[in-house]
Amino acid sequence: MKVAYKIWLDHNGKAFGDGPHEILKGVEKTGSLHQVAVQMGMSYSKAWKLIREIEQRLGFPLLDRRVGGQSGGGSQVTLQAKELMVCYGRFQREAKGAIERIYRKQFASFAQSQERKKT
Amino acid sequence: MKVAYKIWLDHNGKAFGDGPHEILKGVEKTGSLHQVAVQMGMSYSKAWKLIREIEQRLGFPLLDRRVGGQSGGGSQVTLQAKELMVCYGRFQREAKGAIERIYRKQFASFAQSQERKKT
Repeated sequence: MKVAYKIWLDHNGKAFGDGPHEILKGVEKTGSLHQVAVQMGMSYSKAWKLIREIEQRLGFPLLDRRVGGQSGGGSQVTLQAKELMVCYGRFQREAKGAIERIYRKQFASFAQSQERKKT
Repeated sequence: MKVAYKIWLDHNGKAFGDGPHEILKGVEKTGSLHQVAVQMGMSYSKAWKLIREIEQRLGFPLLDRRVGGQSGGGSQVTLQAKELMVCYGRFQREAKGAIERIYRKQFASFAQSQERKKT
C-alpha cells in the first residue's frame, strides 16, 4: 500500500498545478510554447487555451508572446509567472515530503499488524 | 487563491479514500450499509460493489454482513477495517493541516507581492 495524491491551486476553479508548471518550465528552457506542446504530446492550440484560461483565473499574464522578429517569435515566461513557479515548486516538494512522512507515521502500526496477520 | 487536493491510498489501483471512509463511518454508526447508501444518495448495489472492490484490493474484509435474524440483518465493520479507519482518519487530519501550513508558508511572499501589484 502507498499514498497517492493530487494537489493544485484553486482560484474560481482549478487555477494552477503540475501540468501548467511543467509547461512553464519548458517555455523557460526553450523559449517556445510550440516546442513544449509538441514534447508533451499536446496541440499548440490546446496549450495556448490552457495558458489563457489560467491567466484569466489568476488575473495576470504567464507568457509574453513575441511575434516574428529575427528569432521567428516565441514565448517568454513573465516575472509574475516566475514568482509563482518558484513558490509552487517549493510548495510541491515540501508537501510531497510531508504527505509521505505523515503516511509512514500514521500507517506504521497498521502495516505491522497486516504483516502479522499474513504470517 | 487557495490550495486544493485529493489524497487516497493506492494498492494495485485506488484502494481507499474519503468516500469509502465516510461509508464505513456510517455503517459503524447505523449498522446498515443500506441506510448509509440511501443517505449518501448511492444505490445499495453500487455501495456493495465499491466495498467488495476495496476488499479485493486490500486483501481483507471491511464488512461482516449479518443476514436475517431478529434485527433483520445489517452490516458490521470488521476489526481490520476499524484499524484502517483509525489510521486513515489520523493521516487525513494531519495531512490536511500540513498541506495548508506549507501552502501558507510558501505562498506568503507571493500573496504579498500580488497585493502590492493591485494597489
